[in-house]
Amino acid sequence: MAILVVGSVAYDTVETSRERRERQLGGSASYFTIAARGRDQVRCVGVVGDDFRAEDLQLLADHGGDIAGIEKAPGRSFHWAGRYHADMIERDTLATELGVFADFEPKVPQEWLDSEYLFLANIHPSLQAHVLDSMHAPKLVALDTMNLWIETTPEPLRAILGRVDVLLVNDSEARMLTGERSLAHAARAIQAMGPSRVIVKKGEHGALYFGRDSVLSVPAIILDDVVDPTGAGDCFAGGLMGALSQAGADRDSEDAVFRQAMLDGTVTASFCPEGFSVEGLLRTDDDAYAARMSRLRGMMIP
Amino acid sequence: MAILVVGSVAYDTVETSRERRERQLGGSASYFTIAARGRDQVRCVGVVGDDFRAEDLQLLADHGGDIAGIEKAPGRSFHWAGRYHADMIERDTLATELGVFADFEPKVPQEWLDSEYLFLANIHPSLQAHVLDSMHAPKLVALDTMNLWIETTPEPLRAILGRVDVLLVNDSEARMLTGERSLAHAARAIQAMGPSRVIVKKGEHGALYFGRDSVLSVPAIILDDVVDPTGAGDCFAGGLMGALSQAGADRDSEDAVFRQAMLDGTVTASFCPEGFSVEGLLRTDDDAYAARMSRLRGMMIP
Repeated sequence: MAILVVGSVAYDTVETSRERRERQLGGSASYFTIAARGRDQVRCVGVVGDDFRAEDLQLLADHGGDIAGIEKAPGRSFHWAGRYHADMIERDTLATELGVFADFEPKVPQEWLDSEYLFLANIHPSLQAHVLDSMHAPKLVALDTMNLWIETTPEPLRAILGRVDVLLVNDSEARMLTGERSLAHAARAIQAMGPSRVIVKKGEHGALYFGRDSVLSVPAIILDDVVDPTGAGDCFAGGLMGALSQAGADRDSEDAVFRQAMLDGTVTASFCPEGFSVEGLLRTDDDAYAARMSRLRGMMIP
Repeated sequence: MAILVVGSVAYDTVETSRERRERQLGGSASYFTIAARGRDQVRCVGVVGDDFRAEDLQLLADHGGDIAGIEKAPGRSFHWAGRYHADMIERDTLATELGVFADFEPKVPQEWLDSEYLFLANIHPSLQAHVLDSMHAPKLVALDTMNLWIETTPEPLRAILGRVDVLLVNDSEARMLTGERSLAHAARAIQAMGPSRVIVKKGEHGALYFGRDSVLSVPAIILDDVVDPTGAGDCFAGGLMGALSQAGADRDSEDAVFRQAMLDGTVTASFCPEGFSVEGLLRTDDDAYAARMSRLRGMMIP
């Protein structure tokens, strides 16, 4: 079945203690698409500037992305620059140049309106709502957001939360959104806002799934070497949604299918920090994936 | 079989945003003893001052502790005072008054030298070594330590690490001890120093077990209400060692028995923050324990 993602397709300049990479492929929709590993077609809705390299779009197309929804607008592509601290977790944003993304108005091609799975990556909640309005009847809608929207656009955010099935946030965002310190309370408060499943991403500490009648904690796979963690959260979402789509899940599915998809998200995300940009993802194959899934299960099952 | 613990028996003054408790029972050996839940006798070696209340010693005795090794010395008992931040994780130490603990020289009663299980709680590594030297042939030796000893007494610490089977540390201590940022690297480096099993405690994020040939990640049980987290790490150790002793484990046991004991440590520790001092622990019973074990397994098994 088809997954539609709306989000950023961008260039990132990333600096770590070891290396600096300029204007490498980034953006939530890019990571998401490649992370879905061609399990199902990923229809990408986004915008790039006239500086965007043809080979970067081609890369998405070569890895299961349908790029017909990526508009090319006059101007510069969205560009983010950041520097990671030595711990490879904390980072400072050095620049956020929105470029053509500032006036982004997502346009979903007519023939994509029937997509079964919708991932609203982290963009302005009104744009997320606009996309959701246009869709026919998706089986499952997942949404990511961030502190910026929680703080600056709480009302449109609350409005769209009432219409989505799965919310992905990190732990500090869950607390900010609800004012609850306890993640258990925060998850329950979010579920009361709409999404019946809440996924709390905790970076190196893994992720929590709060479902209809169960909670699952999935550890992050312990990596020997972290090269560039940018995009790991979007890769998690890509792996998760890819697995849900392949399983034919919908908003009424049992927790079990979501719990398994949490593992797929985790395994997928684990490849991301092992390379700059999407390089870590591109190096994986089915064997590496299966080996890591078995390693993850070994870390989880007493 | 018998477990011997050497550590502090103390008074804690704890302040949270809701309440302040003065000179309540605390100390690593106290928490450890009650956390072992009378699974096996816990022989306590420690020192208290002449201000120590008889009923507090009696409490330990009533809950499986043999207090014959707790010396009473002239002077004040060890007293720690701290204030928790609103997040109930960060805390400021307001006072550390060593009192009689400053000159503590652990004396293991002759008839306890054959104890099979030894837990060297967080005290000066030379005192830990002194106790270990005196023991006949424990089946399993576990050790806890802290940043203070890592920084100020690295040599005696390294010396005793070469002689223990299980090290319990928190994540920042594991990194400080090894200079490794990655916990996988840090655990391997610690294993090279001696302990074949390394347990990394991560507070609200749970704990990691690095065994002979496996890694297990155990989440913390998500609590609705945190009253006072003081002592949770020692409760973890008590639950773990109690389970290992009941299973008859030794240093050559398979990872499986340690993996199960990690769950016992986690379940035990989860009761601690639900009350001040040892009150949370004292409120539990077998049914509550079993219910929480089943909740933990539900959080872990996909």
